Amino acid sequence: MDIKELLANDRVKPYVSKARFGIEKEGQRVDLSGNLATTNHPEILSARDEHPYIQRDFAETQMELITPVTDSVEELLSYLSAIHEVAYHSIGDQEMLWPLSMPPQLPESEEEIFIAKLKNVESVQYRRYLAETYGSRKQMISGIHYNFEFGDELIQALFNVQSDMDDYKQFKTEIYLKVTRNYLHYRWLVNYFYGASPSSEKNFFEDRPLNEPVRSIRNSRYGYTNSDDIKVSYSSIQNYVSDLSLMVKKGLLSEEKEFYSAVRLRNGHQIPHLETNGISYIELRNIDLNPFETHGISYEQAEFLHLFLLYLLSKDEGANKDEWVQEGDTLSDLVALEHPLQQTQLREEAETIIDEMEQLVEIMSLTVSNSFFTNLREMLADPSKTLAGRLFEESEKSSQSEVAIRLAKENFLQLWDKPYQLTGFIDMELSTQLLMFDAIQLGIRVEILDRQDQFLKLQFKDHVEYVKNGNMTSKDSYISTLIMENKTVTKKILHKRGFRVPLGDEFNDIEQALRSYEIFAATPFVVKPKTTNYGLGISIFKDGATYEDYQQALTLAFQEDTSVLIEEFLDGTEYRFFVLNDEVHAVLLRTPANVTGDGKQTIEELVNEKNLDPLRGKDHRTPLELIQLGELEQLMLKGQGYQLDSIPKKDEVVYLRENSNVSTGGDSIDMTDQIPDDYKKIAADAVAALGAKISGIDLIIEDINVPAAEHKAYGIIEANFNPSMYMHIYPYKGKSRRLTMHILHYLFPEVV
Amino acid sequence: MDIKELLANDRVKPYVSKARFGIEKEGQRVDLSGNLATTNHPEILSARDEHPYIQRDFAETQMELITPVTDSVEELLSYLSAIHEVAYHSIGDQEMLWPLSMPPQLPESEEEIFIAKLKNVESVQYRRYLAETYGSRKQMISGIHYNFEFGDELIQALFNVQSDMDDYKQFKTEIYLKVTRNYLHYRWLVNYFYGASPSSEKNFFEDRPLNEPVRSIRNSRYGYTNSDDIKVSYSSIQNYVSDLSLMVKKGLLSEEKEFYSAVRLRNGHQIPHLETNGISYIELRNIDLNPFETHGISYEQAEFLHLFLLYLLSKDEGANKDEWVQEGDTLSDLVALEHPLQQTQLREEAETIIDEMEQLVEIMSLTVSNSFFTNLREMLADPSKTLAGRLFEESEKSSQSEVAIRLAKENFLQLWDKPYQLTGFIDMELSTQLLMFDAIQLGIRVEILDRQDQFLKLQFKDHVEYVKNGNMTSKDSYISTLIMENKTVTKKILHKRGFRVPLGDEFNDIEQALRSYEIFAATPFVVKPKTTNYGLGISIFKDGATYEDYQQALTLAFQEDTSVLIEEFLDGTEYRFFVLNDEVHAVLLRTPANVTGDGKQTIEELVNEKNLDPLRGKDHRTPLELIQLGELEQLMLKGQGYQLDSIPKKDEVVYLRENSNVSTGGDSIDMTDQIPDDYKKIAADAVAALGAKISGIDLIIEDINVPAAEHKAYGIIEANFNPSMYMHIYPYKGKSRRLTMHILHYLFPEVV
Repeated sequence: MDIKELLANDRVKPYVSKARFGIEKEGQRVDLSGNLATTNHPEILSARDEHPYIQRDFAETQMELITPVTDSVEELLSYLSAIHEVAYHSIGDQEMLWPLSMPPQLPESEEEIFIAKLKNVESVQYRRYLAETYGSRKQMISGIHYNFEFGDELIQALFNVQSDMDDYKQFKTEIYLKVTRNYLHYRWLVNYFYGASPSSEKNFFEDRPLNEPVRSIRNSRYGYTNSDDIKVSYSSIQNYVSDLSLMVKKGLLSEEKEFYSAVRLRNGHQIPHLETNGISYIELRNIDLNPFETHGISYEQAEFLHLFLLYLLSKDEGANKDEWVQEGDTLSDLVALEHPLQQTQLREEAETIIDEMEQLVEIMSLTVSNSFFTNLREMLADPSKTLAGRLFEESEKSSQSEVAIRLAKENFLQLWDKPYQLTGFIDMELSTQLLMFDAIQLGIRVEILDRQDQFLKLQFKDHVEYVKNGNMTSKDSYISTLIMENKTVTKKILHKRGFRVPLGDEFNDIEQALRSYEIFAATPFVVKPKTTNYGLGISIFKDGATYEDYQQALTLAFQEDTSVLIEEFLDGTEYRFFVLNDEVHAVLLRTPANVTGDGKQTIEELVNEKNLDPLRGKDHRTPLELIQLGELEQLMLKGQGYQLDSIPKKDEVVYLRENSNVSTGGDSIDMTDQIPDDYKKIAADAVAALGAKISGIDLIIEDINVPAAEHKAYGIIEANFNPSMYMHIYPYKGKSRRLTMHILHYLFPEVV
Repeated sequence: MDIKELLANDRVKPYVSKARFGIEKEGQRVDLSGNLATTNHPEILSARDEHPYIQRDFAETQMELITPVTDSVEELLSYLSAIHEVAYHSIGDQEMLWPLSMPPQLPESEEEIFIAKLKNVESVQYRRYLAETYGSRKQMISGIHYNFEFGDELIQALFNVQSDMDDYKQFKTEIYLKVTRNYLHYRWLVNYFYGASPSSEKNFFEDRPLNEPVRSIRNSRYGYTNSDDIKVSYSSIQNYVSDLSLMVKKGLLSEEKEFYSAVRLRNGHQIPHLETNGISYIELRNIDLNPFETHGISYEQAEFLHLFLLYLLSKDEGANKDEWVQEGDTLSDLVALEHPLQQTQLREEAETIIDEMEQLVEIMSLTVSNSFFTNLREMLADPSKTLAGRLFEESEKSSQSEVAIRLAKENFLQLWDKPYQLTGFIDMELSTQLLMFDAIQLGIRVEILDRQDQFLKLQFKDHVEYVKNGNMTSKDSYISTLIMENKTVTKKILHKRGFRVPLGDEFNDIEQALRSYEIFAATPFVVKPKTTNYGLGISIFKDGATYEDYQQALTLAFQEDTSVLIEEFLDGTEYRFFVLNDEVHAVLLRTPANVTGDGKQTIEELVNEKNLDPLRGKDHRTPLELIQLGELEQLMLKGQGYQLDSIPKKDEVVYLRENSNVSTGGDSIDMTDQIPDDYKKIAADAVAALGAKISGIDLIIEDINVPAAEHKAYGIIEANFNPSMYMHIYPYKGKSRRLTMHILHYLFPEVV
């Protein structure tokens, strides 16, 4: 069976790049000076022992970040980045993750290395056993496990075009066995490029076996290995399983998982099932942390591993399968123990492999990053460009430890830079990013069903909830959102239930509306299109209007919609109440874009100064928007007798916009603690009257110090079924209200 | 207080035409030969005793149709028409309603007039008392009660511009008392125009007091009146209430409601509350059934009464209020007993009133129907144009009874003509009209919150449900509808739950989609825009496609949406399953527009013949659409080697369209009983997997005789959260499935 030929078959080629990925990344928590943390794993990671994304490995300080399975390397790294952001914010701003595989300086006594304080007794006992058998120091080494699965479409296509085997499961298992043996044989190449553990810190080795730096202590015989008695054959799945069982039976291994091979065969269950169910994916375990990457691995590395595995699938292996693997062990150790700046002894072979990989890319019409092969060849030509080489060279200037601390701090700053976003998902809406952040923190599984559409699947154990736009959930009924969408219906229902709403009429043609002029002529009123929401076509007449103004307002409104509302204008301040499950969780005041004078700076300077706020940005990527100085703003200034270079008096507030939308540079001010309970009750009751569970309801309040019950003290403008949440979470002023967390607790009351 | 002047005040004028209306219309059920029905009130009107729309008055055969309160005469008549349609369909096609106020020929013995078989014992006892006191014959007279309320805005505006009274409630009561007294004084004018009970049928009078025909027996002393002992003053609310109480105390009346005045003062509660709560509306009771109107009253009549009441509000009354009313009684009787073809003795006064009404219309800038005043003046000049005059003249040719039967039959045909619609609401969607029909029948109150938006409020006792488009309800969660709206998410969820869906990919740019050509090249597949629903931009390749075709299909699809799906094409027949609350209630097969040859007629002739089906029409106003013979149809014919004048062989089916949408002339065929249960279970389970309660889910089935469990026997295309219902209720072929009724029973399980 010539797999290389099969891969090039037209019925296989379209699927060659299909694959699924997952990463587990360990790392030690350290304080800001680089000392191993003495704190416990963060309490806030609620689902601690069973957390799907953030776990502890051997030690209490050893964080393990676990991505979900993804269909692309891009998504893989997006999740890895998101989980890092959550991890950093969970451990707080006095700790960071050590960026090296080799741990920071360890305590003198092994006793002071605390194994993970898990609730599960067996998990703790297993770690105690490991500490006794291998010593706790060894267990402190960290790394990356790269889980890889060929796309089922690919294996299916390969199976369909071959005729040697009849059983699909068996075929698939053979595919993975071949790749595994080849990987074990050629893994020295990974050590060369990406080995990154040249030396250890104080107290790691009891005796110092290495005087010279190497490419990878971790992947050498001095790393994390089983004793030499452990022999497991990869020649067939039967041999693999029976060898492993034998090792356990003999007591050489406590459990199958104690077998520390560079590749673990997986099928999502315990080892015994491998033989019956076959291999469904493999786990590469020989990846050192990349110190130069915030998340411990680069896109190119992940891409390399994928391509390398495809290449190894196509490549012939040695005749004797066991020898082939054993040779690999020797070569891996050899390259791992080379000096980081030394040319590898296997350079020629490496060059051949790179050439063959490039050919494969061409034959298969695969796409790789720009300069993918150039970079690999450069690393081959110049060892100082490999990870180990770079780390060693940098460490020469000071020490490896200081380099690590510097890199960790850079990561720290980067990961705390924009707390309102998930860097891997910035194309999604801010509220959805924040909800994903919180879900990851709570240990609720997040799957993106439709990225453009902000459609998430959330899962905690067997409990599944679907969420769109962060707040559209199973808790609201369809009709309640349709009620909120229709301003006339909302008002009718609220009015009937005794709430105060601006009275008025709906018109479907301008003639009919014009005939009603006299009804409104002398009263304060608003003309607005029935369904547009962005302030377009709205005219406000605070003291009535002439017939001409009335006519013009109607013309404008009818340009936006076929139905127009004319409503009583209510005077007062508009507040947004965020209601969730009959309770007000946040109240926000929005003010139009403005600056406050200091008697010295011009309006333009004041705007520029205010725009320095890191929360302000463009295109809804930040919780607040930059104040613009465009035509509308200058017109507004002119109306007040100002220009851009006018200097407002100290404490004078100058408005640059009529409308108070955050999206046009307005400010958001949390008022939750200032608004009296009676208004909150009205908001919550009104939302309940609409049958809604999640709503942002807008109240005009004349004076919050006047009790709500007094005549005309408030009016309800509208209720929104998709209310923005991020503006409450990152307001311009006042307390943050973590609404996304409330949503999650509402959806998953069992998560505490 | 000169109300005429107040009405002309600029602050009052805008509100003058605001009013609220309601009608109660009685009528005797008769068989198709005009004999009083011997059947019971229809069982199907579930909420029988408490039915808000269809009740029994005195007798079991005497239907009382009751409109809700409306804000306009148009809406009033729309409801009256709808309730008539429901009433006719409820009594079945062997009965109709007698169109005259005077009953049809009565049984010889009063014993054979069955009083209404109500459950409530007191109601039955009251009717027995009436039968004993007045005789059952008298109680068989029917008529219209016209409930009228001035707009609260109007009374409020009047109150605001006057200074004589301080108490609003008292002011309002005085307004109504004045109008009532004037109405009682001038009601002879209504008798003249609209009196329509010139003579009685056999067995009505035991002795015949009238030898000559009159304008209105019903409104004369021979009609439905109290004994002469009953004297009630309208001079003040106190006098009215105390007089009534006295009558009851003396035993002259059994209850206040036995007082048969031409105007009843109302406030929605029992009489004793009138004094404390004031009058909130009045009930005009002297309106004879208009024999020439399907619903017993014309638009102009309703308009006249509104305008007449406004006029009476503006008109001065006599100095002695009690005398003023008593004079009215005399005048009313006088005009009622005039010969229908005789000029009225009060013609001059009538002309003055009409002139004054016209002046009022001008002063107040009110709008009335075209020729409103011309018609009134013609009736004044020519008594044969009054209702009594017309009925009498027509009866002269045969008999009043025969005229009545003919008119009843005309109504019968009209009310059965388009069973799929509610004539007063044809601007609304068919499914909503059908749901309203069923709600009215079940006695569930219907209020239209937004007519354009198909937004209804349904209420049974205290239980309120809101419904949009007939099937968007509180039962579905918001997220389930969003899931169904998103085809990719729907497929992902169904696929994960083990349902078969066409596999494929979503593409957001054409380049990326083009690169995937090889994946689909040789397979059957469909290219379609992600969110459009009307078949636009869809290309089907049943045997793969060339690159050029593939490219063109993508270009078309991307013109419709920014996301395009490429999916496996499933061969088979598409069925629509309507699932409600985990149960399949209907399965429909839709076929493209087609005709079946008879070996004689041309295609054009066959189409014309098929289009005669009364279910076919235009613009979704009918359950099926007319088959067109436009460009697309002719192209389709050409592709099969046909032209419009080709003559297909007998039993040959010729298709005129590719797509099977009912909206382009397709046929709908009910298959509910033909589809095996295993497919129904799949449909119901899939909808449940989406968390939905109401959905139209489309399955492609290769062969309904192959069990669903067999590999590839079906595939789920999509689930619709707003599935059409009328096409199941009025299919082209097969059984009707009354889904609107199922929806109502689902929303209101307490209604049986």
